[in-house]
Amino acid sequence: MKRRVAVLGATGIVGQRFVSLLADHPWFDLVMVTASEKVVGKKYTEAVKWVIEKPMPRKVEELTVEPLDVNRIVEEKIDIVFVALPKEVATTVEPELARKGLVVVSNASNMRLEPDIPLLNPEVNADHIDVVEVQRRNRGWDGFIAKVPNCTTAILTLTLKPLHDEFDIKRVVVASMQSLSGAGLTGVPSMFILDNLIPFIEGEEEKVETESRKILGTLDKDKILMNDKFKVTASCHRVMVLEGHSMAVFVELGRVVDVEEVIKALEEFKDNKIRGMGLPTAPEKPIIVRREPDRPQPRLDRMEGNGMSVVVGRVREDKVLNGVKYFALGHNTIRGAAGTGVLIAELIVKKNLV
Amino acid sequence: MKRRVAVLGATGIVGQRFVSLLADHPWFDLVMVTASEKVVGKKYTEAVKWVIEKPMPRKVEELTVEPLDVNRIVEEKIDIVFVALPKEVATTVEPELARKGLVVVSNASNMRLEPDIPLLNPEVNADHIDVVEVQRRNRGWDGFIAKVPNCTTAILTLTLKPLHDEFDIKRVVVASMQSLSGAGLTGVPSMFILDNLIPFIEGEEEKVETESRKILGTLDKDKILMNDKFKVTASCHRVMVLEGHSMAVFVELGRVVDVEEVIKALEEFKDNKIRGMGLPTAPEKPIIVRREPDRPQPRLDRMEGNGMSVVVGRVREDKVLNGVKYFALGHNTIRGAAGTGVLIAELIVKKNLV
Amino acid sequence: MKRRVAVLGATGIVGQRFVSLLADHPWFDLVMVTASEKVVGKKYTEAVKWVIEKPMPRKVEELTVEPLDVNRIVEEKIDIVFVALPKEVATTVEPELARKGLVVVSNASNMRLEPDIPLLNPEVNADHIDVVEVQRRNRGWDGFIAKVPNCTTAILTLTLKPLHDEFDIKRVVVASMQSLSGAGLTGVPSMFILDNLIPFIEGEEEKVETESRKILGTLDKDKILMNDKFKVTASCHRVMVLEGHSMAVFVELGRVVDVEEVIKALEEFKDNKIRGMGLPTAPEKPIIVRREPDRPQPRLDRMEGNGMSVVVGRVREDKVLNGVKYFALGHNTIRGAAGTGVLIAELIVKKNLV
Amino acid sequence: MKRRVAVLGATGIVGQRFVSLLADHPWFDLVMVTASEKVVGKKYTEAVKWVIEKPMPRKVEELTVEPLDVNRIVEEKIDIVFVALPKEVATTVEPELARKGLVVVSNASNMRLEPDIPLLNPEVNADHIDVVEVQRRNRGWDGFIAKVPNCTTAILTLTLKPLHDEFDIKRVVVASMQSLSGAGLTGVPSMFILDNLIPFIEGEEEKVETESRKILGTLDKDKILMNDKFKVTASCHRVMVLEGHSMAVFVELGRVVDVEEVIKALEEFKDNKIRGMGLPTAPEKPIIVRREPDRPQPRLDRMEGNGMSVVVGRVREDKVLNGVKYFALGHNTIRGAAGTGVLIAELIVKKNLV
Repeated sequence: MKRRVAVLGATGIVGQRFVSLLADHPWFDLVMVTASEKVVGKKYTEAVKWVIEKPMPRKVEELTVEPLDVNRIVEEKIDIVFVALPKEVATTVEPELARKGLVVVSNASNMRLEPDIPLLNPEVNADHIDVVEVQRRNRGWDGFIAKVPNCTTAILTLTLKPLHDEFDIKRVVVASMQSLSGAGLTGVPSMFILDNLIPFIEGEEEKVETESRKILGTLDKDKILMNDKFKVTASCHRVMVLEGHSMAVFVELGRVVDVEEVIKALEEFKDNKIRGMGLPTAPEKPIIVRREPDRPQPRLDRMEGNGMSVVVGRVREDKVLNGVKYFALGHNTIRGAAGTGVLIAELIVKKNLV
Repeated sequence: MKRRVAVLGATGIVGQRFVSLLADHPWFDLVMVTASEKVVGKKYTEAVKWVIEKPMPRKVEELTVEPLDVNRIVEEKIDIVFVALPKEVATTVEPELARKGLVVVSNASNMRLEPDIPLLNPEVNADHIDVVEVQRRNRGWDGFIAKVPNCTTAILTLTLKPLHDEFDIKRVVVASMQSLSGAGLTGVPSMFILDNLIPFIEGEEEKVETESRKILGTLDKDKILMNDKFKVTASCHRVMVLEGHSMAVFVELGRVVDVEEVIKALEEFKDNKIRGMGLPTAPEKPIIVRREPDRPQPRLDRMEGNGMSVVVGRVREDKVLNGVKYFALGHNTIRGAAGTGVLIAELIVKKNLV
Repeated sequence: MKRRVAVLGATGIVGQRFVSLLADHPWFDLVMVTASEKVVGKKYTEAVKWVIEKPMPRKVEELTVEPLDVNRIVEEKIDIVFVALPKEVATTVEPELARKGLVVVSNASNMRLEPDIPLLNPEVNADHIDVVEVQRRNRGWDGFIAKVPNCTTAILTLTLKPLHDEFDIKRVVVASMQSLSGAGLTGVPSMFILDNLIPFIEGEEEKVETESRKILGTLDKDKILMNDKFKVTASCHRVMVLEGHSMAVFVELGRVVDVEEVIKALEEFKDNKIRGMGLPTAPEKPIIVRREPDRPQPRLDRMEGNGMSVVVGRVREDKVLNGVKYFALGHNTIRGAAGTGVLIAELIVKKNLV
Repeated sequence: MKRRVAVLGATGIVGQRFVSLLADHPWFDLVMVTASEKVVGKKYTEAVKWVIEKPMPRKVEELTVEPLDVNRIVEEKIDIVFVALPKEVATTVEPELARKGLVVVSNASNMRLEPDIPLLNPEVNADHIDVVEVQRRNRGWDGFIAKVPNCTTAILTLTLKPLHDEFDIKRVVVASMQSLSGAGLTGVPSMFILDNLIPFIEGEEEKVETESRKILGTLDKDKILMNDKFKVTASCHRVMVLEGHSMAVFVELGRVVDVEEVIKALEEFKDNKIRGMGLPTAPEKPIIVRREPDRPQPRLDRMEGNGMSVVVGRVREDKVLNGVKYFALGHNTIRGAAGTGVLIAELIVKKNLV
């Protein structure tokens, strides 16, 4: 029997992605969407400025947009809520929802670093989900909260995981070139970015530097421990691309490694924590390695694995850092947001946590 | 009395910049332009697809495009030639010109690493010009060749010089976001770059990694020695910006330095090798530091110092690399090509080498 | 049994579209691709710079690129060739192919106006195909040539047909905003179009003005007669859009018509010449009318009907011209080129002409 | 002695242009800038997100942003206010200012069609300024209001004036391709326009259709009469260009005219109403005609005449409309807004109306 799910903040770019991924989902039944007051009561098709490349699913066109009201959500017997709300709103709403027994899968950046809140990039750390038992106990909640990582971090850590497993990462230097959708539907005015780039995204570098170490951390008995074996330094930039975050990654390993060895580690992804679980949104290959000199490219490669694969290219030795350097690309509103959110929910179902 | 100068390859983007900078130059008289066969004999205004933001200087509109013919150049009593030719053509022509007594200031990438060829970023290493005496002796030439560095390297090394002087750089990690003009007028088809970026520029990373160490090297008695105190690792990317190369720079210093100290070093640029020489093209401030969180930006800041200043922003401690990280921007066809070429020629005149 | 087909000029943008549409076609078996000499002998996947939004079909990846050789095509027992060659090459090759018995469906602009060559936009003038009997007789060919119209004209005439049928068009004024793909893969350098538009496309206006009248013309017993009841004046412009030609259309009718009447005529498309034929590539609705004030838009609407529908919006009375004005959008490399080419071939099969 | 002037709404894109044009103006002393409440009290340099291609004038950097307060403006003994406010705000403020004796030169769209308010494109209809005597009498004001036309209309009517004078225009069909700056600094989100265009600009077509006829109208004794000899039908579109509105113009004249005749009329502009007045902002040539097939282009030509000239190209016979068709380009925030505003103020000074 399908779980009843809701998307909170369904008209923004991440909300639209959630709606797009959930409308025909085999395990979930999307029965509720909420959005800001000025469109409450409208049909979804009239409330949203749809920018997804595929047409809006028939099923959601007629859904009536609801206000953000915890009691309504409970009355509607929702099992899982997907949160695409601004941080400020999420901070208040999420604990209330968890208290009332809901499973909250959230893309908002609040609480991501709390040790009893799992920050999940499922292939990397699906095992962290078990911390929700502690979370419930600690906080006296019937439900729980699971967090989707920052978009850039989700893409980056997928590539770091097999390298760390096999070669022991010491330091990571990453310079990102991030897409416009990462700032939301109306976040970047065209007058500011045409023939230009913007070398700053508020809070982004800190998120990459800290969340990476939590995602690659370990689950102790009552909390998640940050990985203290490596550190990350980031510089984040906005470029004129619609979707797809790119990044140049330099990894210090303590030794120069053979390029083929690295590619093998990435492609095999031995310790993929969700392998064989049969989660519908899991990509066949979490990491795809391209060998052409000029790939991946955002417009051509962002939809690999339905937007859930990260594509790596230009793997080369780095003799300066004693390690390896490469270029990575992922779809920021799918792999880096809604897609990973849906994958987390699938994991939760599979683990019988809802 | 003004020196008679020629621009070889005057219709490309760098050639146009040379023409633009030389047409009203106080020390130089632009009397000759050459271009490819199919436009030889035409007036410059008809031969060129002008894309510079300022109108074409009156004076050059009526110049007749000449073929690339060494004898003609000699007959015309040219003192200095500015070379904006493809590497393959430059490789043959430049030694011939130098043999016949011409001063060759070249933007082409051939011979840049030869120890008796000065690779000049004047504020950084104007003293390397003295190697031309060795060059003449070695090669039996009456003239000589001086090289403009790779565009990205010219911008990067201007910022590295004061940091290396004051803090001893150990390693540099640089990820560039380079403009379309760097690939030439027709180098990047619009279908390949719209809503996209290209994570590869042939040969660029190697140039940044090696040329940086030559520019910051020292002039021994008969050759220029590479600086072996630091190393550079680079990742280079093309983005949809018309002019202006941007780069995220991470510098390992062996210690975390205070941001204000770094800014002071950059702004003061104590060991500027051309300070006080009165070279017309030298910018008042080789490095401008911006303190806003989101600057510099290519469209807004590339013309600082008439395109000859490098603009640095987002200077911040890097505790991971034990050093500092920052963002730098320079105009690639001015500071990174024609402007630095003209500045080199001014240095040559000042030093009475022509 | 499937017809054996070949794509000539398979690596360009229109060639890629043909390959994409034919690889899994129910009636056609794509067995041969040709391209320019420098890639002959390579596998298609290595020969092409694929820019289509969908992955390259598995089936064609391994096809070996052949040279353009009429005898080889005959030997391979090809039934239909799809031509995406430059006009100059097509001019020589197409008559040879037709002479040797092949059915030639061509996107090249040569011969489009010859009275015994059908210029087909199937919903509008599928009946013109019958002129091929005259063509064969006239020219002594075993095969024949059918032409795909100019891209802008194909889109425009689809919208003009129902209006002309119902309201008698007198004059049409059209200003187009055409996409980059219309100039081919490398036709528009990015330096020329970023923050810009180009108000000229060679030969385009003439094609729109004349081809429209042939497509809406009538098949006399031995030739196609131009429609002399209306005239078209065009102004064509290139804008920074990847795919999708847009156009502002002003139609003088001799009377102001009711907007709803016009919309009804467009949506019903009463005299659709291929209705009910079951051609696989025919869109369910050749014309889709949007009522929002700001639609259609190229990025959001170009894939309607798998790229085969034309989307019309902003239908409004034009009291100045005594008629109607509207905005129309079509996918230029599908509806305006390869898609219409495949639809023509389907018509030819249906009519047992191959 | 210089007139004291203020810019109301000085931080928007048109406000910035006003500031840029007025800072070093020979006749005006910019002593006051106002902006929205959240930046009142800040220095201008901190209050504005400057996007003009030239650096901010020194002089204005230190101006303190004032609130919009009619009494303050009077106290400051301002002679002329330049209004770059939203229509809703302007509707209230402008009559108050005029009542209190100020000369109001306004870019806001309210009141543009009232018969005692001059709507000025000075080269075309400087004589309409005399209606301000009627306006004062009618309304009992000490000051008066003069309006800058809609941006597209200002550019269009400059080209229509000499054609109407010489050839009697009957109908005009115009399709515009308008720049992003026309929607204000943050008006068009980048996610909506990249790889796209938007075929709708609210209210724009109506403005072009009606304002054109007022600008080319005549001053009767107590009002301005619309020109009823010709009509205009417009279709307006937003494209991805930073600055510069382009338009395809089709003009029905009742006869086909010789291209050279048309070019002569445009270049001579015989009845230029401000010729010889010595207004500092008047361009030497109001209309520049280019003969290359592919010019003008926004990025290359928008700054002609410091942004005050309109550039026309592709003049060709239109046998369908019995007239002429051409392409026109003008700088929308200079010729189409602030530049024309300053030119109007210069006219007012010259006529001793302030």
